[in-house]
Amino acid sequence: MELNPIPILKMNGKKALFNEEKLKLSLKNSGATAEMIAHVLEEVKLALYPYISTQEIHKIAFSRLKQFKRATAARYNLKKALLDLGPSGFPFERIVEQTLIYQGFTTKTDQILKGNCVQHEVDVIAIKNNFYLLVECKFHSDQARQSDVKVPLYIQSRFYDIRLQWKKDASYQNKSLQGWIFTNTRFSKDAISYSNCMDLNLVAWNYPSKGSLKERIDVAGLHPITCLTTLTLNEKQALLKEMIILCRELLKKREILTKIEIHPQRHANILSEAKQLCNL
Amino acid sequence: MELNPIPILKMNGKKALFNEEKLKLSLKNSGATAEMIAHVLEEVKLALYPYISTQEIHKIAFSRLKQFKRATAARYNLKKALLDLGPSGFPFERIVEQTLIYQGFTTKTDQILKGNCVQHEVDVIAIKNNFYLLVECKFHSDQARQSDVKVPLYIQSRFYDIRLQWKKDASYQNKSLQGWIFTNTRFSKDAISYSNCMDLNLVAWNYPSKGSLKERIDVAGLHPITCLTTLTLNEKQALLKEMIILCRELLKKREILTKIEIHPQRHANILSEAKQLCNL
Repeated sequence: MELNPIPILKMNGKKALFNEEKLKLSLKNSGATAEMIAHVLEEVKLALYPYISTQEIHKIAFSRLKQFKRATAARYNLKKALLDLGPSGFPFERIVEQTLIYQGFTTKTDQILKGNCVQHEVDVIAIKNNFYLLVECKFHSDQARQSDVKVPLYIQSRFYDIRLQWKKDASYQNKSLQGWIFTNTRFSKDAISYSNCMDLNLVAWNYPSKGSLKERIDVAGLHPITCLTTLTLNEKQALLKEMIILCRELLKKREILTKIEIHPQRHANILSEAKQLCNL
Repeated sequence: MELNPIPILKMNGKKALFNEEKLKLSLKNSGATAEMIAHVLEEVKLALYPYISTQEIHKIAFSRLKQFKRATAARYNLKKALLDLGPSGFPFERIVEQTLIYQGFTTKTDQILKGNCVQHEVDVIAIKNNFYLLVECKFHSDQARQSDVKVPLYIQSRFYDIRLQWKKDASYQNKSLQGWIFTNTRFSKDAISYSNCMDLNLVAWNYPSKGSLKERIDVAGLHPITCLTTLTLNEKQALLKEMIILCRELLKKREILTKIEIHPQRHANILSEAKQLCNL
């Protein structure tokens, strides 16, 4: 029996039709096998009702996926794991920094740069040969919050002011200075139009199609510890406090699990999930 | 007996010493006579205690002033009256617009202007001869909130984008386009440095020394109805809902007092205070 398309509610409050292919693709991107996809899809389709939210669909898929392979589920859950990095924007900045290091840049964080008019705080400066990227990180704990056009507008003025100052310095004459903004949610349509027009580079969860945040994290194996399904929310917060942000950092500093008082019997499971997640 | 200087707490949480001359000046600026000032000062000095807040001092002075002349007290209370215009920024925009009309500009509000990259919403456009002022109004309900450097930074990019578009249009060739930002609280030090450097014009409650918001409202007699001591907060909100923002508008539409069900016996008092306040 063919079912009528089911209307669903997206994060932004808009309606859409349930799209089986889209769900399949996101499962596949998380590393799910054909068998796993078929099972998850069956479970989701059984649970569908008119105006079910995308969060609810995601929750069902995630929970079924976990029964198959925890690392695949953890990868599927990356979007939510990024939101869980809050409330401070600091862990997100470190992930952005790591994606740039993965690309061969050397980085400096939380720098105060002199502009022509005033001083500016820049989250990350990434340097490779003659390229200097000035990077602003916009972290939101709430998936529904997007960065509107005001963000690239003020960043553009900031970079313009810094550039003006650099032009006075002979040693920067042959350097190329680029403005970048990373966010874990999304940019408004106007923010994208304006940035394209002004040669500002934007990276959001799902933007641009080549080089999105999701892809950068996946390719470099920079999954945050908030992805792990073997830890509770409190344990994740304890690790973040200890400056353990990435799964690979946890693997290098295993002793931290004892420090935050996780029972030794659980360590192997946690470390095994972290390892699978980083493709190590 | 000479008293030791009393430490007080300012709005921004910083400590200062109680300054008699400053209080005298603000009372004088509100139109208080020498006799009134002496009485208010006496009462305030009796009430002082270490780390009393400036709000508390203001409240005591305001309450004593009211016993002398309600219109003077109302004028003294202008800063708070502006905060009471919220939560929406609409009434504040109208007051800013009226200060510009008083200076001989013709105005348009809530305009969508085409920029080189994207469209922008401009709160007020004020035109006189060849001068076009693009005005952004930043209203805060909370006195402690200031506009930081991000505000002039994004406004600068916006005006730059609009200016670039105008340059393509021959009919705007001989026009001068200025960016202005009005706020009812204050700008950060960096916001002021940046704006001066970029030729953006700022107007805050007490800035610049010549042409501050306070002075503009006072000179033009544009006191909002939230100044009136003869109305309750609920009655003021009811008037704002009826689009009566200024005392002078109330004087022109007296029948509104009946509409919002204020007892006829109180009308004369209210209207008399409004009249004194506008210097009519």
